[in-house]
Amino acid sequence: MKKVLSLAIAAALVAPAAAMADATLFGKAHFIIENTDTTPSKGADSTDFWSVDSIHSRVGVKGSEDLGDGLTAVYHFEFKVNQDSGDGLGDRNQFVGLAGGFGTVLLGRHDTPLKMSQGKFDQFGDLPHGDIANVMPGEDRVDNVIAYVSPAMGGLTFVGAAVSGELGDSVSLYDAGTATTISTEPSLDSLFDHISVAGLYSNGPIFASLAYNSYSLGDDLDADPSLLRGTFIWDGGMWQAGAMFNSWDWDDVTGDTDSWGLSGNLKVGANGKVKAQYLYADSPRSTANKALAAVTGLEVTDGFSPDISVSLDGDADNEVTQFSIGYEHNLSKRTILHAGYTAYEEDGSGKEVDAFFGGIIHNF
Amino acid sequence: MKKVLSLAIAAALVAPAAAMADATLFGKAHFIIENTDTTPSKGADSTDFWSVDSIHSRVGVKGSEDLGDGLTAVYHFEFKVNQDSGDGLGDRNQFVGLAGGFGTVLLGRHDTPLKMSQGKFDQFGDLPHGDIANVMPGEDRVDNVIAYVSPAMGGLTFVGAAVSGELGDSVSLYDAGTATTISTEPSLDSLFDHISVAGLYSNGPIFASLAYNSYSLGDDLDADPSLLRGTFIWDGGMWQAGAMFNSWDWDDVTGDTDSWGLSGNLKVGANGKVKAQYLYADSPRSTANKALAAVTGLEVTDGFSPDISVSLDGDADNEVTQFSIGYEHNLSKRTILHAGYTAYEEDGSGKEVDAFFGGIIHNF
Amino acid sequence: MKKVLSLAIAAALVAPAAAMADATLFGKAHFIIENTDTTPSKGADSTDFWSVDSIHSRVGVKGSEDLGDGLTAVYHFEFKVNQDSGDGLGDRNQFVGLAGGFGTVLLGRHDTPLKMSQGKFDQFGDLPHGDIANVMPGEDRVDNVIAYVSPAMGGLTFVGAAVSGELGDSVSLYDAGTATTISTEPSLDSLFDHISVAGLYSNGPIFASLAYNSYSLGDDLDADPSLLRGTFIWDGGMWQAGAMFNSWDWDDVTGDTDSWGLSGNLKVGANGKVKAQYLYADSPRSTANKALAAVTGLEVTDGFSPDISVSLDGDADNEVTQFSIGYEHNLSKRTILHAGYTAYEEDGSGKEVDAFFGGIIHNF
Repeated sequence: MKKVLSLAIAAALVAPAAAMADATLFGKAHFIIENTDTTPSKGADSTDFWSVDSIHSRVGVKGSEDLGDGLTAVYHFEFKVNQDSGDGLGDRNQFVGLAGGFGTVLLGRHDTPLKMSQGKFDQFGDLPHGDIANVMPGEDRVDNVIAYVSPAMGGLTFVGAAVSGELGDSVSLYDAGTATTISTEPSLDSLFDHISVAGLYSNGPIFASLAYNSYSLGDDLDADPSLLRGTFIWDGGMWQAGAMFNSWDWDDVTGDTDSWGLSGNLKVGANGKVKAQYLYADSPRSTANKALAAVTGLEVTDGFSPDISVSLDGDADNEVTQFSIGYEHNLSKRTILHAGYTAYEEDGSGKEVDAFFGGIIHNF
Repeated sequence: MKKVLSLAIAAALVAPAAAMADATLFGKAHFIIENTDTTPSKGADSTDFWSVDSIHSRVGVKGSEDLGDGLTAVYHFEFKVNQDSGDGLGDRNQFVGLAGGFGTVLLGRHDTPLKMSQGKFDQFGDLPHGDIANVMPGEDRVDNVIAYVSPAMGGLTFVGAAVSGELGDSVSLYDAGTATTISTEPSLDSLFDHISVAGLYSNGPIFASLAYNSYSLGDDLDADPSLLRGTFIWDGGMWQAGAMFNSWDWDDVTGDTDSWGLSGNLKVGANGKVKAQYLYADSPRSTANKALAAVTGLEVTDGFSPDISVSLDGDADNEVTQFSIGYEHNLSKRTILHAGYTAYEEDGSGKEVDAFFGGIIHNF
Repeated sequence: MKKVLSLAIAAALVAPAAAMADATLFGKAHFIIENTDTTPSKGADSTDFWSVDSIHSRVGVKGSEDLGDGLTAVYHFEFKVNQDSGDGLGDRNQFVGLAGGFGTVLLGRHDTPLKMSQGKFDQFGDLPHGDIANVMPGEDRVDNVIAYVSPAMGGLTFVGAAVSGELGDSVSLYDAGTATTISTEPSLDSLFDHISVAGLYSNGPIFASLAYNSYSLGDDLDADPSLLRGTFIWDGGMWQAGAMFNSWDWDDVTGDTDSWGLSGNLKVGANGKVKAQYLYADSPRSTANKALAAVTGLEVTDGFSPDISVSLDGDADNEVTQFSIGYEHNLSKRTILHAGYTAYEEDGSGKEVDAFFGGIIHNF
């Protein structure tokens, strides 16, 4: 009898102290005030406005259990706090896994190894104007992931992830002639439709990584684009300098489209840090991939799995730069004030965005 | 002054340790890898694909307060983790109640007593291919519930629930002649529009239950279908065997449509368990209830309250079977690995689904 | 190396006990059973039905960190439990801030100071039939808020909030001549598009407050309506009496539209409280503001920022009254049973709503 009730009612009557012991509530509150001045294209009027926003504020529950024999069960459910939209919570990394001498195996929703391979390169992460995701492809969090993290071997760690398309994914193509949008047959049916792998090396001041993503566009499209990312960071204690390079390979349809960046910071006093970042890409990020259109004869308007971010659009006449400078002040290890400025430019289209921002971060 | 601020600001400044003491964070992480091979109908091409999914993973907060005089206040807010859809959290059981010598009274969203009456019958619960809900009606979680659980009396417990339709519910009817869908006038206005009751008996190795649901379809439809469920489980320590029977009564419109099942498991070694389950139904679950069409002259395309699951569709020429076998291995009391196979068949339509799955469960 | 993994995987392996220490899980479970009898207009048929509802049940996480030098970081993420709709969680107050000798500064989503200025006036807060929000304008929770709360100075506290419209807001206008809806150009671009300020005074039995909201409707509409609210409450220990007055100013388009109310309660025995409330308004709350139509020549069908509640509709021939009586019984400091009755009437339209309700509140 107890068994039945314990499922539904009695569960509420007994607070299992043991269970509570390892369920950790955690999160991050990050809000900014920002002024954004946008010129959509050459000669167009600019729009200037102020905003107050939550910047990927989050809450989560995580924990682990020692299973004996060196085996540990881990879980992690993390949610985005949607302060602006008013619809509660969205999704961040959510997984269950087993960790042991062999490394860690996870199932669920997770950042790709390629995204993880950036280490501490991004000095303006999460910020709507500043994050490397505005310029560089590959900043993906995907569901339906099987991931593996190796143990560190002499400073070297391997991370791999396989992503299943689950039939629900297809590529949308726009036929300008008939002004219609067609979709390819959703044929992604394996556990390995998309692959992301990364090797990470950490030794003293050096962090270096190399990562590779391979995407399948299904049977209808004869193209399997891929992305290569290399990251190098030198942590000099009082300062840090980093470089990143991304190359998007159109599967021999046309030449690669590349992006690269430099970032650095310098500690100022006991609690301050000045930081700067410069990013460059051959072409803007876009869902309308002009290079891929060469394969299909059609314009690709929505590519890859819904969860896989779009690539660079392959327009050779529209180079992108994003430059950011900023300052951080630690009120404590967990609480940070920051301010900064970002300028984004596309030299072909003439699009320009200038943003000033200041904010507060509290980790818990 | 303190009173006003405590509502809004000061609340954040003071962490009431006492309140925290009985708020228990709990949940379950359950993810599987699955291969599904579906043949939609006789002679049709089959579709085969792999997937990685969260299986009703959940998080919740619950607690209780001793009110003195044998009275206890209980609360329980439980949410589904929507790993796949990316939209944060969905709803599971959510209620507040009072417990005492008289039993427990609850208000909120809850599994029906008929669903609760299954005890530990379902060996493949929650699994997309395996759960008894694929074959049997009545696996409902409903909102707007007033529920009562009696104290155990010599092994016998009574559970009852009343569900209000709150005017928002109506039945959709499809008129094939005019190819239009019409809806009945939403006339469900009482606290007892739908009723679910169950008697549960537990004594030594024996668990037995009998449960009954009665549905109101409103004033426009002269039909009040009902569902009867009986469950019997023998727990032999090293093994368990169970039987379940469901009979859907069309309110004298036509004969009953029935479903039944057998399940069992056998412990293997210290931490293993082999399990099997066979389910049968006269006809598939469906929202288009052919028997009910005999009352209305119209095809019912969406029946009952939105929260009440559909019944068997009453097609006498389309018998359903679902057979599952599997193995569970306990890594600890809270962490379980499992693997299994399910075959679902409709002998009339020729629909077939074969699924292989393996997964990990971690309770916290 | 650790740095990279700590972002994603290792985070789950280590449960930081220190972090947990000040993350407080809190909430409120409030469910009612209600009978509602609605007559939509003079001579129309009434609709009578029962319901079981969650009344702004909520869960949240909050905490603070002592930053030294008298400075404290605070955070507060609170979510509504959507028991009825089934879609998990909605939003309540969500913010991060810094508190010190200068007061408290917050960024995020928050009740306006005008709403906060009501103190303990509302005897039937949150209830679908009873809350002052049914009759009085200004009961707003808004996002994109910068708020300031002063320290108490001799019983006096100042609270101010600035709300940015973030260009997303526009006013919808209905042109009856062409039967089309047009929207004003969304031109709200400052941090101070909407303003809410309040002065609160608390001294012994006296609580008094004065609050003011100013709304911007953008460049296209030559109107900046405002709202003034005064509240006075006397807390006599065994009893409480309060009065509130709201005046909506149409920016000289037409006369003010006003609302006022009286409320009180009387303690009965050790744990009981009888309470009553009477509210009056010149005209009903509405999104179709007749007075504003005088400015535009068009009917305003959706006014202000989406998060700012509508005003009184300015119909001088449709006075509103809402009368409520009720009883509360404390089972403990945290658990309360209550029952009550509310009658709502519009004397022009003839709309009438009578509601009986009983419920249980549990704070945690």
